[in-house]
Amino acid sequence: MSSPTVSSNGYPFTSVQQTSFKVYSPVRGGTERSLPSAAPPRLPFSRITEDDLAFFRQLLPGRAITDPDMLESCNVDWLKSVRGNSEVLLRPRTTEEVSQILKYCNERNLAVSPQGGNTGLVGGSVPVFDEIVLSTALMNQVLAFDSVSGILTCQAGCVLETLSQYLEERDFIMPLDLGAKGSCHIGGNVATNAGGLRLLRYGSLRGTVLGLEVVLADGRVLNCLATLRKDNTGYDLKQLFIGSEGTLGVITAVSILCPRKPKAVNVAFLGCSSFQNLLETFQCCRGMLGEILSAFEFLDASCMGLLEKHLKITNPITECPFYIVIETAGSNAVHDEEKLHNFLEKVMASSLVTDGTVATEDVKIKALWSLRERVTEALTHDGFTYKYDISLPVEKIYQLVTDMREHLGDRAKNVVGYGHVGDGNLHLNITSPTKDPALLAAIEPYVYEWTSGVRGSVSAEHGLGLKKRNYIYYSKPPEAVALMGNIKAMLDPRGILNPYKTLPDNLNLH
Amino acid sequence: MSSPTVSSNGYPFTSVQQTSFKVYSPVRGGTERSLPSAAPPRLPFSRITEDDLAFFRQLLPGRAITDPDMLESCNVDWLKSVRGNSEVLLRPRTTEEVSQILKYCNERNLAVSPQGGNTGLVGGSVPVFDEIVLSTALMNQVLAFDSVSGILTCQAGCVLETLSQYLEERDFIMPLDLGAKGSCHIGGNVATNAGGLRLLRYGSLRGTVLGLEVVLADGRVLNCLATLRKDNTGYDLKQLFIGSEGTLGVITAVSILCPRKPKAVNVAFLGCSSFQNLLETFQCCRGMLGEILSAFEFLDASCMGLLEKHLKITNPITECPFYIVIETAGSNAVHDEEKLHNFLEKVMASSLVTDGTVATEDVKIKALWSLRERVTEALTHDGFTYKYDISLPVEKIYQLVTDMREHLGDRAKNVVGYGHVGDGNLHLNITSPTKDPALLAAIEPYVYEWTSGVRGSVSAEHGLGLKKRNYIYYSKPPEAVALMGNIKAMLDPRGILNPYKTLPDNLNLH
Repeated sequence: MSSPTVSSNGYPFTSVQQTSFKVYSPVRGGTERSLPSAAPPRLPFSRITEDDLAFFRQLLPGRAITDPDMLESCNVDWLKSVRGNSEVLLRPRTTEEVSQILKYCNERNLAVSPQGGNTGLVGGSVPVFDEIVLSTALMNQVLAFDSVSGILTCQAGCVLETLSQYLEERDFIMPLDLGAKGSCHIGGNVATNAGGLRLLRYGSLRGTVLGLEVVLADGRVLNCLATLRKDNTGYDLKQLFIGSEGTLGVITAVSILCPRKPKAVNVAFLGCSSFQNLLETFQCCRGMLGEILSAFEFLDASCMGLLEKHLKITNPITECPFYIVIETAGSNAVHDEEKLHNFLEKVMASSLVTDGTVATEDVKIKALWSLRERVTEALTHDGFTYKYDISLPVEKIYQLVTDMREHLGDRAKNVVGYGHVGDGNLHLNITSPTKDPALLAAIEPYVYEWTSGVRGSVSAEHGLGLKKRNYIYYSKPPEAVALMGNIKAMLDPRGILNPYKTLPDNLNLH
Repeated sequence: MSSPTVSSNGYPFTSVQQTSFKVYSPVRGGTERSLPSAAPPRLPFSRITEDDLAFFRQLLPGRAITDPDMLESCNVDWLKSVRGNSEVLLRPRTTEEVSQILKYCNERNLAVSPQGGNTGLVGGSVPVFDEIVLSTALMNQVLAFDSVSGILTCQAGCVLETLSQYLEERDFIMPLDLGAKGSCHIGGNVATNAGGLRLLRYGSLRGTVLGLEVVLADGRVLNCLATLRKDNTGYDLKQLFIGSEGTLGVITAVSILCPRKPKAVNVAFLGCSSFQNLLETFQCCRGMLGEILSAFEFLDASCMGLLEKHLKITNPITECPFYIVIETAGSNAVHDEEKLHNFLEKVMASSLVTDGTVATEDVKIKALWSLRERVTEALTHDGFTYKYDISLPVEKIYQLVTDMREHLGDRAKNVVGYGHVGDGNLHLNITSPTKDPALLAAIEPYVYEWTSGVRGSVSAEHGLGLKKRNYIYYSKPPEAVALMGNIKAMLDPRGILNPYKTLPDNLNLH
């Protein structure tokens, strides 16, 4: 019936299918393995029948969608890089409905692709073949908010920005923020263990998510929706579902610890003449801004060039090889400004920073942040983009960009680096006038081997999804991957939940 | 052969065996279940033979201990409340040795009780019958420390205080601190997901532990010892072992993210005339001290009475119903003192706080902290103590003490409450001149039902161990407990790792 196709403008996940590659694990003793290089075959799930549709229509009146136009947007990912061929979109409103759907699909051997805001970057949120799309879009209710503890409980389909607005009115903020906030769902954020711009300050979702409600593959509802900061009664099951990309269960509700809204926010946009100076600025910043530092982001001159060229954004400072966005957030405006002033004085005096500008008003803060946040958008105008989300020891994060640039020579149009210095997270992007298999072959597996060689992670925050599933061995030892397969088999023995995602093909269940 | 015995001065875990109790789960629809009330029977593990001892002596020359005097301290817990009858103590130095031990024990069907500093409070760290004690005491090497990222990697047997000293010399601190720091091992801290005094500021170990090396029951080594802040390549397996109390694997090494040592620390010791005032002080404190608040702890007047009576400690302020310890930690001493001053002025002016004293010097800081930290010690001098570690919505944490006092009337000698207000974590302690089964029957299941009724946790940070294993249903739904059993069966199919602990008797494997 259906087979995976790739849009002409998309990320070449077909290349994963066409390229033969080997996995080297230098840090674990140099074992070498061959992995399946072909497209994942469609597993022998049932095909959807009229009887199935009748069941779904009765369960979800008006919310079992088969209209092709309406299916289009849920079959294609945000990057327009992966296309599935699902024939039905289900829009439950309640946990009970999700439970009924999964119980039915499990019994009928129908595969399911859970979907939040469909903003993922690794093809994890769209069907590969004809999987049923289970959308959380109508599960968008705030269930409770406790203004003493700052604990929010809500359904999985709440949009991150909507939650942020809800909280800001109550003098709190969400502990995470990311570019896709206008579309992404909190359930999807949790399912992919999203990082984003506030991780440096408020930590990962593994610490801030206090409870989850999850529907398992067979329809059982696992209610771990605790609202306690501490609970050591047995194993912490919710951690299994954080970052499992919908392959172990469908998250239906989330409780999360939200910080108070800071009374003062400042943003500085600075320029550095070398990456070494940028790193020394970071060290100095951590010492002098300490507890009020809430973000330390960077972009290189190539990113700035793309912003200027494609988005007509003006560089607010003099041209530099590297730019930094520093944000402070604190409880006392006077203290924060003084700390920031002292810090800036020091890094300017020592020439670590060559130019800079500071914003305290909301409009200017947003303008400075947009320099960092709109790099992704600028890249989409530069041609076909090969995207990598790499976690590295912080002192190595730009070396990969330099090495890649040298390695590719003039085969690439642009090789740019930006990302979260504070988290050791590099976004490496390589553009080309058109899709270019030869260029891809020069990038991969080079980028993964380089990363593995310094014990980095081939996916810092985007997850593995469909596109990166077979690269897991670059960052995880075989014993760990095998254990992941055991967990999958335990929780979803028929493999109906988000098949072809996260786990490598050699572990595919059915 | 051996059977569990209880020291005369100990926590009456025999009462768990003697008392018939039922579990009510009011928050989950009032289902009522009977649980095994008898002592857990010894499971049919093999008995240790001379051949086994010969194997261990060859593997660990001079480190397979059978001397009864040396075995004594590892058979009895810190509270002297639980006693096992292990006949051999193994002291490996390397992960490879741990792997060899477990591989052998798994094949031979010998049960193993992993042991760190043996400072646990729920009988989780000592054998129940004749389990082999596997001590991490000689696995005490720091493996690496990166002063740029603050990431420490060390063997599991490093003592927490030793690590703290190591880091302080390098201008960093451990992200956790607890009363038992002089003895507890970092591996044990991670295995029990220890909370402690810094959780309010630095979050739980689920966020700060970046990697673990674990030996599984069959001897396989799972190397997830990453040193990256972000890594979304597959399921986060290390979370399974954090808080699993040695029942799923033996932690052999840990990598952990350490905060910079704060440049300024202040401690305030304050008195409040009511718990409502204390809560309002907490709210005000969070707003005004914000990002520099590092601890908000409390003790009640009864605790102060015990400190004065048994430890001859002098109350530094006038007598009050409630006392608070507030700690600030920040990067600018002048700013921090100003914030603290403004806060104190406000809470004194509004009469939320009736008296107080502040310390900035190390000696006086330690003296003020000892008022909170030595309550446990004072209690041991007050007679037989029934200890509860309860997680509650913060506004309810003292109501349980009040209700318990009323409920018990003059049957208890003292009913006292202290703990971590910021985390919603109450330490409820009830003393009696001697062990008193009638008193215990009045306390339990009342305390668990009360907790369950407000959706609290019956173990906030101590874990379940041997003593609380059967109370898990008060805080977790049956579906979750069943899934925990599946995970145990997957990772330790013969059930050799720390049997009789954490999971309830109805899930006992063998």
